[in-house]
Amino acid sequence: MERTYTLTISCPDRVGIVAKVSNFLAMYGGWITEANHHSDLEANRFFMRHEIRAASLPFGLDEFRTAFSPIAREYEMEWSITDSDVKKRVVLMCSKESHCMVDLLHRWQSGELDCDIPLVISNHEDLRDLVEWHGIPFVRVPVTRDNKPEAYAEIERLIDEAKADCVVLARYMQIIPPVLCSKYAHRIINIHHSFLPSFAGAKPYHQAYERGVKLIGATCHYVTEELDAGPIIDQDTVRVNHRQTAQDMVRLGRDVEKSVLARGLAWHLEDRVLVYGNKTVVFN
Amino acid sequence: MERTYTLTISCPDRVGIVAKVSNFLAMYGGWITEANHHSDLEANRFFMRHEIRAASLPFGLDEFRTAFSPIAREYEMEWSITDSDVKKRVVLMCSKESHCMVDLLHRWQSGELDCDIPLVISNHEDLRDLVEWHGIPFVRVPVTRDNKPEAYAEIERLIDEAKADCVVLARYMQIIPPVLCSKYAHRIINIHHSFLPSFAGAKPYHQAYERGVKLIGATCHYVTEELDAGPIIDQDTVRVNHRQTAQDMVRLGRDVEKSVLARGLAWHLEDRVLVYGNKTVVFN
Amino acid sequence: MERTYTLTISCPDRVGIVAKVSNFLAMYGGWITEANHHSDLEANRFFMRHEIRAASLPFGLDEFRTAFSPIAREYEMEWSITDSDVKKRVVLMCSKESHCMVDLLHRWQSGELDCDIPLVISNHEDLRDLVEWHGIPFVRVPVTRDNKPEAYAEIERLIDEAKADCVVLARYMQIIPPVLCSKYAHRIINIHHSFLPSFAGAKPYHQAYERGVKLIGATCHYVTEELDAGPIIDQDTVRVNHRQTAQDMVRLGRDVEKSVLARGLAWHLEDRVLVYGNKTVVFN
Amino acid sequence: MERTYTLTISCPDRVGIVAKVSNFLAMYGGWITEANHHSDLEANRFFMRHEIRAASLPFGLDEFRTAFSPIAREYEMEWSITDSDVKKRVVLMCSKESHCMVDLLHRWQSGELDCDIPLVISNHEDLRDLVEWHGIPFVRVPVTRDNKPEAYAEIERLIDEAKADCVVLARYMQIIPPVLCSKYAHRIINIHHSFLPSFAGAKPYHQAYERGVKLIGATCHYVTEELDAGPIIDQDTVRVNHRQTAQDMVRLGRDVEKSVLARGLAWHLEDRVLVYGNKTVVFN
Repeated sequence: MERTYTLTISCPDRVGIVAKVSNFLAMYGGWITEANHHSDLEANRFFMRHEIRAASLPFGLDEFRTAFSPIAREYEMEWSITDSDVKKRVVLMCSKESHCMVDLLHRWQSGELDCDIPLVISNHEDLRDLVEWHGIPFVRVPVTRDNKPEAYAEIERLIDEAKADCVVLARYMQIIPPVLCSKYAHRIINIHHSFLPSFAGAKPYHQAYERGVKLIGATCHYVTEELDAGPIIDQDTVRVNHRQTAQDMVRLGRDVEKSVLARGLAWHLEDRVLVYGNKTVVFN
Repeated sequence: MERTYTLTISCPDRVGIVAKVSNFLAMYGGWITEANHHSDLEANRFFMRHEIRAASLPFGLDEFRTAFSPIAREYEMEWSITDSDVKKRVVLMCSKESHCMVDLLHRWQSGELDCDIPLVISNHEDLRDLVEWHGIPFVRVPVTRDNKPEAYAEIERLIDEAKADCVVLARYMQIIPPVLCSKYAHRIINIHHSFLPSFAGAKPYHQAYERGVKLIGATCHYVTEELDAGPIIDQDTVRVNHRQTAQDMVRLGRDVEKSVLARGLAWHLEDRVLVYGNKTVVFN
Repeated sequence: MERTYTLTISCPDRVGIVAKVSNFLAMYGGWITEANHHSDLEANRFFMRHEIRAASLPFGLDEFRTAFSPIAREYEMEWSITDSDVKKRVVLMCSKESHCMVDLLHRWQSGELDCDIPLVISNHEDLRDLVEWHGIPFVRVPVTRDNKPEAYAEIERLIDEAKADCVVLARYMQIIPPVLCSKYAHRIINIHHSFLPSFAGAKPYHQAYERGVKLIGATCHYVTEELDAGPIIDQDTVRVNHRQTAQDMVRLGRDVEKSVLARGLAWHLEDRVLVYGNKTVVFN
Repeated sequence: MERTYTLTISCPDRVGIVAKVSNFLAMYGGWITEANHHSDLEANRFFMRHEIRAASLPFGLDEFRTAFSPIAREYEMEWSITDSDVKKRVVLMCSKESHCMVDLLHRWQSGELDCDIPLVISNHEDLRDLVEWHGIPFVRVPVTRDNKPEAYAEIERLIDEAKADCVVLARYMQIIPPVLCSKYAHRIINIHHSFLPSFAGAKPYHQAYERGVKLIGATCHYVTEELDAGPIIDQDTVRVNHRQTAQDMVRLGRDVEKSVLARGLAWHLEDRVLVYGNKTVVFN
């Protein structure tokens, strides 16, 4: 894959933004390989993402930032630029369920998920062998009813130490404390095993079974203080019928969870997800 | 289509039910063209549906009922037998939205929906031409804040007079009073324009837009006293993204509503839907 | 809906195209409400579509064309600009099957399909009532083994007279002669009732049944001289199983045909489909 | 999971088969937990599958076979009965691509795929570590242009020695010789990376890219002498668009391949797939 810079922008909508940005890029010979725009007419907000061939620009990210800052200020942009050669650092958190972990680790190992995984944190030992076979450090931090403050302080320390850009809750099954949610806002990704907002909270497949729904689903979202209520990145569903028990739904749902989480994470890693309010713009 | 009888059975599960029923049929030379069984292990209940070539049996429905009754009593069956030559009578109820009505009327006209439609009832005039072009009587019964008891008494009278086997709320948009829900239990079919249990009640697409979901859906269910909480017959979803406004979702959702309602109604007409508790067994 | 202009461009890829075009628009105060780009790296070709608020520009289409021409020449663009207030004129052609026609006519009547339908041409009388009920002229041009040259000359005359921008074969079931294919290149849209390239030609559902496939599909494509081989606009599939006969597949397939054709036509009408070689770029 | 026997039957259709079989089961107290029937009216053939609680019958499989044989002969049945406590033995064959293998091995390890895997055979070393980490013997049998007869003789020997009930080509990428296809008829399962019959043979994703299709797919089928033409067990598709390169399709297609192969194999292991002619009846 050719080295690219990815520029993402979110700002109030007005005439001339595209011209301003594309002029800036053209002035320096920037070759755009992918461009996406979105105008949210209701919020009067503009979203933009560009991939630019790194080799086509005469400078690196620092100079880019310096040169682009006046435009960003003029248009009140929230913006970022990233370099495809600098891999994002992803800390995975898991519990006992292996399916999402096996899936993510294989996608990482095969090069499909373009990131570094410096660390896996779990409250159980079950997946240690799997993780370590992939050559990734595994740290167990047991979380009990009584040790939450200490446990999450330790987890926070580990995440900081790992210089994590992003944390993925791969069926971690524990509630993340508000302070961590805030500190890593829009950087903690969870997979919830229902088609939210249906069946938030515990045992969603059993709730789905009780209600007699004909589709079950999974939701990949950013974690916020309110449980299972953060901005949704992706969702999907799979058909069930009267023959499926709650346990069958658990099994069928795993495949949806895996694919939805893998897609959502990949989009996040490629800076395709822009958050505004409690919603996402996903340039996929 | 060859004439068939359809036998549906729901009873406590135990050994020998299938043998008993299939023996009964075989004894009279009954040729089974489709058979479906389901054991709900949790509820310890057995469900069964047979299609039998009418010509293979030496008698009609009345004699069938007489001959089969002892078995039905022995096994505590809730059961029914219907004749494909006797079309079910379906009263459609609509409001201003045309998409479900156009879809159902075309499927009826082309022979895909095998039923009679003796009457359409609406609280508005908008769809009169459409309905009458199909040669079906159209009666307007305005429902206002003040006339509900009289209006629904009139509607009940019309439904009774039409000898309806089943009522379809094709985006009728009014809440059916409890007395009608009970009288026509498991015979009033509604299409709700969300993937229930998410977004019950009013303006589900706008709720979906606000929540930022990535799929919208529709649910076909039997109407019960509790709003949008009856047994689900079918559901489906369609993908949306940040570009869709609430209005776009309304438009995209129409196609899901149409197909989910048409499928659910077809299954109901073919006696493929058995209700138990608040769930359905759908032998499709 | 606000009045917009839609600018579509296809040209050799190079640095600065986006800047050039967006500068041009910004210079005149053009407010972009939707923008889509695509670089085909293999073909080294660039595709672009902009929707611009008409009211934000100081001139109409003619002046736009004059002002933009130098840029178009410089970058060797194939390009067009259209006005949402000028509806495209669509001639529908059908045979005996009604499902696609009912669907398209309803979407047109309800305002979902934004076009004029000056004429329906058919080789049979069956759908005359349906079409005329919608207030659209219906002309029968019988096509037989012996009269093809005269029949298609008549059809061509009717299409020309109707000033058609586009022709839709809504299950027309006849092969369009090469001369018409060329004259209306990328403007005749067909729905083929299989997932192409599988099962081109006659009786695709029967071919699918024979092969024992587990999904059937439909394909919306531009008509070219080679049968069922033109650029594909959209496709979709639906699950089948051993219980479905070929006749069941015909029935199930209708719903896929309807939705795929409606989607493909809507995208065409909104200038979202750009053809290059035998492929399409669809900015949806 | 409770121990069950699974009885599958395929025979000419006639009146009384269900009665005969269910009587037989009822006579011995057999408790049916799942039953499926299918009448192929065109082929005049009847298919049936029963799951029976082992504990409800007074005898084991041998006595069952003896007792049931007269019925089987009378109705000219092809039939089998299997015991859920006797796991099927599955030999996996792979090449360099890991995705299907990782997926199958994880499903096996987590107990979702209920089988033994006595051996993995590959023509390359790449996946040895993965396989051996799961505690499964891995044997490399290089296949070259020149050694095919010897290589496949060795492979046949290994499969025989492993007492394989079934062989899975998990992206094995080599053509199995006719003699092996015959010997293990309906017992070698392949995953082909296209929606067959489109794009049989080599490089299907590149063929799909060239054709400009809007969906790509995968097909799980039994291997027969004719390449990619055997009875189809399952298929699925995933949406692509103009932005996907052939390489992107390869990546996206992997997820479909994995899920289609895993589903097809699970159904085979549960004796849910009955082959007749070049088609399958799948009681899922």
